[in-house]
Amino acid sequence: MRLSRSFLPTLKENPAEAQITSHRLMLRAGLIRQTSAGIYAWLPAGLKVLRNIANIVRAEQDAIGAQEMLMPTLQSSELWKRSGRYDAYGPEMLRIRDRHERDLLYGPTNEEMVTDLFGQVVKSYRELPQVLYHVQWKFRDEVRPRFGVMRGREFYMKDAYSFDVDYDAAVDSYRRMMLAYLRTFQRLGVKAIPMVADTGPIGGELSHEFLVLAPTGESGVFFDGAFEEQDWLSEAVDISDRESLAKFFARMTSFYAATDEKHDEAQWAKVPPERRREGRGIEVGHIFHFGRKYTESMDISVSGPDGAPLYPEMGSYGIGVSRLVAAIIEASHDEQGIIWPQSVAPFAAVIINLKNGDAQCDEICERLYAAAPEHLLYDDRGERAGVKFADADLMGHPWQVIVGPRGAKAGIVEVKNRASGERSEMPVDAVLAHIGVGA
Amino acid sequence: MRLSRSFLPTLKENPAEAQITSHRLMLRAGLIRQTSAGIYAWLPAGLKVLRNIANIVRAEQDAIGAQEMLMPTLQSSELWKRSGRYDAYGPEMLRIRDRHERDLLYGPTNEEMVTDLFGQVVKSYRELPQVLYHVQWKFRDEVRPRFGVMRGREFYMKDAYSFDVDYDAAVDSYRRMMLAYLRTFQRLGVKAIPMVADTGPIGGELSHEFLVLAPTGESGVFFDGAFEEQDWLSEAVDISDRESLAKFFARMTSFYAATDEKHDEAQWAKVPPERRREGRGIEVGHIFHFGRKYTESMDISVSGPDGAPLYPEMGSYGIGVSRLVAAIIEASHDEQGIIWPQSVAPFAAVIINLKNGDAQCDEICERLYAAAPEHLLYDDRGERAGVKFADADLMGHPWQVIVGPRGAKAGIVEVKNRASGERSEMPVDAVLAHIGVGA
Repeated sequence: MRLSRSFLPTLKENPAEAQITSHRLMLRAGLIRQTSAGIYAWLPAGLKVLRNIANIVRAEQDAIGAQEMLMPTLQSSELWKRSGRYDAYGPEMLRIRDRHERDLLYGPTNEEMVTDLFGQVVKSYRELPQVLYHVQWKFRDEVRPRFGVMRGREFYMKDAYSFDVDYDAAVDSYRRMMLAYLRTFQRLGVKAIPMVADTGPIGGELSHEFLVLAPTGESGVFFDGAFEEQDWLSEAVDISDRESLAKFFARMTSFYAATDEKHDEAQWAKVPPERRREGRGIEVGHIFHFGRKYTESMDISVSGPDGAPLYPEMGSYGIGVSRLVAAIIEASHDEQGIIWPQSVAPFAAVIINLKNGDAQCDEICERLYAAAPEHLLYDDRGERAGVKFADADLMGHPWQVIVGPRGAKAGIVEVKNRASGERSEMPVDAVLAHIGVGA
Repeated sequence: MRLSRSFLPTLKENPAEAQITSHRLMLRAGLIRQTSAGIYAWLPAGLKVLRNIANIVRAEQDAIGAQEMLMPTLQSSELWKRSGRYDAYGPEMLRIRDRHERDLLYGPTNEEMVTDLFGQVVKSYRELPQVLYHVQWKFRDEVRPRFGVMRGREFYMKDAYSFDVDYDAAVDSYRRMMLAYLRTFQRLGVKAIPMVADTGPIGGELSHEFLVLAPTGESGVFFDGAFEEQDWLSEAVDISDRESLAKFFARMTSFYAATDEKHDEAQWAKVPPERRREGRGIEVGHIFHFGRKYTESMDISVSGPDGAPLYPEMGSYGIGVSRLVAAIIEASHDEQGIIWPQSVAPFAAVIINLKNGDAQCDEICERLYAAAPEHLLYDDRGERAGVKFADADLMGHPWQVIVGPRGAKAGIVEVKNRASGERSEMPVDAVLAHIGVGA
């Protein structure tokens, strides 16, 4: 994209309405604009990040056999009356009445709808397990929306639902999802640590929150630093094998991790002191086994091995996709601006033309840009070098390719890595391979 | 995807609630399920089609320099009061009151919001033209939703908006969009003919509807059959050149095309009789120049060449993405089911195993399937051959790869083209190249 022609408005000043870093930087880097309280439009660069995150989330859901579908944003109140949650949900549910005076609501979550659809389609225990997910806009009418998309009202979420024949199979599904989540967050370039969460009346260890470590997090966290060194992408797990899943899960849960609410000093004392990490975290995901709560209350069964009705065991698994954009920024920025992990960056690199109109500079920039215009931002504006450098740092592109008249004469450009600050000079022909872009 | 494990429920019987072919076939082929009146969940195969269509639409928008963003589904009533449309819109607008008694609405379209965002970002005429688009769920509270997603309430739409410095530049934007639309529909594998539409008080020839030809269409259409033979994908147009755009547009409009409402017998008489085509059409797109209607009413200006405020000329450009799924089916089906154009098909091919459990059949099927599991559906169910053939025709995969025990012994499979019905036998190794799938 050519910056001179693009809808990527950067702001020099900190917007008064933004209280936290990610909100400030998302506004300043031109990722979002608020359209109503807690409701945002995603400008082109912001949408690219949102989509990059969603696609990584999808890939890891697909890898464990979850099937993507898409449920609508508006739901009938009838469904929620069947589960008993319509009255229980409270004022965060946005209730709507249509022209025929029928009660609708903007879905804050989808347990009821997916359970109903499951019941229409799946008839026999032989068709289990089924794991269904969608990535869809949801609405929660927060009483005080704030912190930008961190606590917005209309938000983008991946929610998955598993249906299993019995408790043991449900545990397998839960563990597969745990693996998918660990791999997802690692690919997103953030440290998200699973912490045991409250399971309510069901009990067991089958609820985990995933918290991204960031000083502005809403919860205090305590965890074993060895967790951060694990490489889940190369973890050998046979997801079709119960033993293999159990082994993986035992290893994962062997590392202490808890939020301040669930912190256990006795367990903590067993963590070697040099590995004890304390900090704060932002919740970006939550996985949860809840058994037959919805299948029983909504009377959704399949025929079991003996022909009698069998009520499947369910779990639900959320990732806050729009919230992750903010959480990643909270975890990855400096005084100058955002530092995007490569996997989610809106552009792999910015090409900075230090002297627009200089034939050699223009030629080199155009040549580099033409190699992968969809992955590169070309700063072709007639602005001073200082403005271009500041905007590049603010927007957080992983690489900056700096093309100035002196180097251009010799066919040399400078390449800066945003995260490390490292700079190197190289021939034009070496740039694309160096930054990992193009053919 | 393995059909035995998938959430792709086919129905043998015609559902009673479906009155038109596309609605019947979408339910029977397991693409959608209704969740409330006029509101649908997209099951995995349906979502694939929806996404394939949206991605082709996006690619052609991007190709003319339009920038994708994403506006929220809910809008503030304030914006619509500024344009004067809040009271004018009528009961199709779904009006919502939040917990703080603020009036929101579920966006039926986005002229107001995009104009407001444009005004926040673009300050000078030098930054024009700008073309912004998004693909987002919208809601129109139809008094009688029917025909499935053809006339649903929650629907998926691409809407683009152009901002230009003056009328001539706006005409250029309109013509670029016309080209993008012709290319889009051609890539989607449907014949969508642009017809001059009513422009209201503004006049001119700057409003076209695009109608997909289908016997069940809502409008009668009259057009020059020569139109259907044009190849817009190889049309040489320099979209940065006004003359080139004008030449293209003159050629395109030289072919007579009108809905019954705008039909002109005098012009029709000039079309050579052998080229006169009459039929019916389903509206799937609408492009529209409306000048300064919103920029003036909302007082959104940029600074002009003389420093004085300049109110940009606008156009808006819609494509009904979810409606297109139904329209394509109306235009492309037979007694047995859907006939998907390759570009939008949920799967490139189905692999039909005629004898599950036969070692050779299973081996060949698994081997073919492993080459591109994301593009292939493997019918590994323990069903009779007749059921598998019927479902394959119903679901409309462009190719059927039929693996039976007799051929398997000799390493031979049968390949059927769904559209032509043509069948041929070939060695297993030749199949993927024949159907254009895999490495």
